[in-house]
Amino acid sequence: MNPAVEAVGASVIRALHAKRRPDSINLGLGEPTLFPNVAHFERATRWVGEHGCRYSSNIGDLDLREAIAAHYAYPNLDTAANVCITTGSQEAVYVAIKTLLDPAEDELLVVEPAFNVYVKIGQLEGLRLRRLAIDPRGDEPFDADAILAAVGPRTRLIVICSPNNPSGRVVSRATTARIAAGLLARGGPPVYLLHDEIYREIRYTDDVGDFGKVYPYTIAVNSLSKSNALTGLRIGWLLAPKEVMPQLVKMHGWATSCASTFAQRVAFEIFSAGELSVSRPWYAEQLAGVLAAVRTTGLEYIEPEGAFYLCVRVGAADTLAFAEQLIVERNVVAIPGHIFAPDLSGWLRTSFVGPLSEVRTGLTRIADLARESGLVTPAAPQRQ
Amino acid sequence: MNPAVEAVGASVIRALHAKRRPDSINLGLGEPTLFPNVAHFERATRWVGEHGCRYSSNIGDLDLREAIAAHYAYPNLDTAANVCITTGSQEAVYVAIKTLLDPAEDELLVVEPAFNVYVKIGQLEGLRLRRLAIDPRGDEPFDADAILAAVGPRTRLIVICSPNNPSGRVVSRATTARIAAGLLARGGPPVYLLHDEIYREIRYTDDVGDFGKVYPYTIAVNSLSKSNALTGLRIGWLLAPKEVMPQLVKMHGWATSCASTFAQRVAFEIFSAGELSVSRPWYAEQLAGVLAAVRTTGLEYIEPEGAFYLCVRVGAADTLAFAEQLIVERNVVAIPGHIFAPDLSGWLRTSFVGPLSEVRTGLTRIADLARESGLVTPAAPQRQ
Repeated sequence: MNPAVEAVGASVIRALHAKRRPDSINLGLGEPTLFPNVAHFERATRWVGEHGCRYSSNIGDLDLREAIAAHYAYPNLDTAANVCITTGSQEAVYVAIKTLLDPAEDELLVVEPAFNVYVKIGQLEGLRLRRLAIDPRGDEPFDADAILAAVGPRTRLIVICSPNNPSGRVVSRATTARIAAGLLARGGPPVYLLHDEIYREIRYTDDVGDFGKVYPYTIAVNSLSKSNALTGLRIGWLLAPKEVMPQLVKMHGWATSCASTFAQRVAFEIFSAGELSVSRPWYAEQLAGVLAAVRTTGLEYIEPEGAFYLCVRVGAADTLAFAEQLIVERNVVAIPGHIFAPDLSGWLRTSFVGPLSEVRTGLTRIADLARESGLVTPAAPQRQ
Repeated sequence: MNPAVEAVGASVIRALHAKRRPDSINLGLGEPTLFPNVAHFERATRWVGEHGCRYSSNIGDLDLREAIAAHYAYPNLDTAANVCITTGSQEAVYVAIKTLLDPAEDELLVVEPAFNVYVKIGQLEGLRLRRLAIDPRGDEPFDADAILAAVGPRTRLIVICSPNNPSGRVVSRATTARIAAGLLARGGPPVYLLHDEIYREIRYTDDVGDFGKVYPYTIAVNSLSKSNALTGLRIGWLLAPKEVMPQLVKMHGWATSCASTFAQRVAFEIFSAGELSVSRPWYAEQLAGVLAAVRTTGLEYIEPEGAFYLCVRVGAADTLAFAEQLIVERNVVAIPGHIFAPDLSGWLRTSFVGPLSEVRTGLTRIADLARESGLVTPAAPQRQ
């Protein structure tokens, strides 16, 4: 048995979900409850009827890669040759971390809070790992000075997730420019920056920085999972500079061969129809509702600028135990914040993808349990 | 950059295909040209319309895993808990090799000739590698004595592909029983056996051994790619003993999260309809035609017992150069045998998935080039 695989923990999120009951209020979800546009599946099915369902190239279908490159138009990543189609963004992240770092030499820098997959993959691959926690409540949730100061001589890849899971905070255009300038000024071999922008299309501010626009050594990963309610389709992509593409595509090929031809047809239809940000207004309404709701609870929270999560402070010393108690005693699923960063111990990540009435009830029950446990003494609830 | 990724070669097969012209006779294909049953896509699309397309569990959908376990009914692998759904059999092989072996200690034994993916993955993971070449022309293409003799104290995983790519030879029931008995008699920690049975449903003999039936430490991998002409759907699975499943599922989860929900619905429909061996009669007709054709060329060949490949001897010292010359001068794509095993240097792998008239023309052109190059002096062509 591979000791690195044995040593890595399984998903806490999946384990918590396994404890829920059929009637649980599920604020633990990391996926939309919206329905995808099934017309694209119908069209892709007709395509299969006409063409069959054969292997695509390792790198993916040319027309889809062209559409993706054009959609982002990131200066150094703007041709089909800069795009590799993957089995969701998860495989894109796996392939990028596995390929770009030498386990004997290089260090992976993960900016936290963040979905714990980057750290897990780093551990699986036996990499040197540096975790930089930045307070997601402050003015600088992606503090350029702190990030640049954390880059050492061995750092070859930095991971930043924005819009952020779990905090919902977004890296600003000014910050991406400052980080890019700082990295470019270092000299020496390039430090690549993996921008996980899977929540890019779900945002509540116009000041959203894309590293691909300002930093030529960006690896951008994304998928249709969150934007188009297609977590189950497993279609994602990575954009990367040409000098690293051959190695990335090769690793992708040996791990999974190629992305699904059917899923690539669905994705091409979505890009052609311009439907990537189709759900943005719905999430904006959800956000307004959830902010109104959380203010009535008196819970401390982080106001999201993107994604569909709201982090709330419950003050528990053992956040996992609190989350388990919340399921057992209050029938509400929420994700303990400590899995995203040590700083978020005592916090829960809740999602607002479900009906607002459920989100409201769930937040109220969280506040009640925290208060009754003597963990927080919230300010008097605000009136809406 | 990860030096192990850099050091591993890209796919020779894909590189050769890239050189073909639109009107090339393609005997290099490793996938069916048949069409899949699109009714299953229509039904899965309706399912998405009703249920959405959300994440499945890491391990995969219960109903599909139950159907797969029941289809094989391998004694130690016969429950849904023994089945993990993957992104094609490629990911299943990747996850199995990555998870089951400790790079610091363990050795991977690959029985050749075989598709070179096992060796490539072993190299990517930095494993000790032992390649055992067995003459695919003999009475014992999976010689039990040779395989058992090659198992050393560090061997923790043996890979056997049967029906074999490229030879088409099949491990017999008697041989699987002898290998199983020999491995069980060794004592000590178990040696797992990865049976890549992706061509299992395409066979021309009844004496087909399944390691899962006789050896409790079997990992069986398969997919719908070859049996149901669905290479582009990327749906496969691995069956494994319960004691290793948690680690396999965890590794699968961190690499790709979960298999496609849509593809799992298509797969469930295919299992429910009992359509796994639907193409077998068609391939049997193809085989009869290709054998008649190759006999007229005078080329030495290996008679296949399964899969859809015919290996023919051209006698070239540089088989890759011959394959490239074949594309340029005769407009025929075929795969050099040396990538599957040193023994198959001088041989080409041809496939008979296309129209028989093309297969016949392709084989004739291969024989002509070999003869005109003075490489082989075939016996007088036999009359059909």
